[in-house]
Amino acid sequence: MMRIDIISATPDLFESPLKSSIIKRSQTKGITEIHVHNLRDYAYDKHRMIDDKPFGGGAGMVLKPEPFFEVISKLKSERTYDAVIFTVPHGKIFSQEDANRLSLKNNLLFVAGHYKDIDDRVREYFATEEISIGNFVLTGGELPVLLMADAIIRLIPGVLNDSESALDDSFQDGMRIAAPSYTRPAEYNGLGVPPVLLAGNHQEVKKWKEMQSEIMTAKWKKLNNIPE
Amino acid sequence: MMRIDIISATPDLFESPLKSSIIKRSQTKGITEIHVHNLRDYAYDKHRMIDDKPFGGGAGMVLKPEPFFEVISKLKSERTYDAVIFTVPHGKIFSQEDANRLSLKNNLLFVAGHYKDIDDRVREYFATEEISIGNFVLTGGELPVLLMADAIIRLIPGVLNDSESALDDSFQDGMRIAAPSYTRPAEYNGLGVPPVLLAGNHQEVKKWKEMQSEIMTAKWKKLNNIPE
Repeated sequence: MMRIDIISATPDLFESPLKSSIIKRSQTKGITEIHVHNLRDYAYDKHRMIDDKPFGGGAGMVLKPEPFFEVISKLKSERTYDAVIFTVPHGKIFSQEDANRLSLKNNLLFVAGHYKDIDDRVREYFATEEISIGNFVLTGGELPVLLMADAIIRLIPGVLNDSESALDDSFQDGMRIAAPSYTRPAEYNGLGVPPVLLAGNHQEVKKWKEMQSEIMTAKWKKLNNIPE
Repeated sequence: MMRIDIISATPDLFESPLKSSIIKRSQTKGITEIHVHNLRDYAYDKHRMIDDKPFGGGAGMVLKPEPFFEVISKLKSERTYDAVIFTVPHGKIFSQEDANRLSLKNNLLFVAGHYKDIDDRVREYFATEEISIGNFVLTGGELPVLLMADAIIRLIPGVLNDSESALDDSFQDGMRIAAPSYTRPAEYNGLGVPPVLLAGNHQEVKKWKEMQSEIMTAKWKKLNNIPE
């Protein structure tokens, strides 16, 4: 059983994605348990303020330290977390290796930033990992947390059906793009599928898939400036 | 007005994220209009099947070509799309440049894959852009589409409030990480904030922010093997 806790200033955002697809199934099957905590529930001043202006000036609002200290301390007093993960632009960019590694843990705590930023003392005090989802600006860390949860959860044994088993997916086996897929009809709107896939020679199919994978991986590396 | 159309086999997943934060606000303000299309509504066989086994064997189900051809052809007959974007593992990895570029368009069509893959004839026939969100395996393209939508929509003039204006965010100004943020209280649980931010000398604050940004950007590049 993996327990995932998520702290967010916009908890409603999580509602439908946590009820969809394999994230839902992992919970139904009792393989994961996911709890979303509303930051605002831990703001104890009379206006339940969770943000304030940045010291030193500048645009945007900064999430205040107190509510984070309250909720993270409470959660940490209840169980031991294998990782306290902050979504930050300067973090290590998330990859399949991270998904593989984190899928073996029991208790994960994700802290999603929102607005301009979280007061940096929170990260400094609590973060055991700082992860970025890529080189672009988002409104908050909520969608990155969902992406990471999806990538992690699908790797836990029992979540995917046999027929979904992921061994020949792109990236599952290192930096390799999988061959393209085709299904029926064999001809549609004048568009066919590669004849080798229809001929039923398993050796030839395997060779074709390997070659396609090689070509696509090379193109993809070139496109994204990834060293050979 | 930007119109975004999204085609998905799990349309319910989009419900709460499209009603949250700035994606919601952009719609309320009439700046964007977002339509999610259920792939299953365009499967016309009696069982409304949208997937089938892959030609050539292997695990996983492949999304059939017909429903995609039906829905994409219908949408393209109704308006001209500036981009038909497929989320694929072998695509160009999404970056802030893509968000900037796409934020200037009028009509975007996103096609989210799900299960093992989409029949490759669909991509071959319709895709004008193939984008990946990163080097990891997900259950579907739905979360990547939401991430891209968020990154794009927040750049459209009128979506963010003045106080959220994004000019000093990380990545907004090229490959640069922003300095850390702090807000009140100036001391919390024995943790202070950098004194320069409290002293009120704007020149000194600016110098500090630039230096922090430089240090953090260098660390981030090293961490992610990004060339100088």
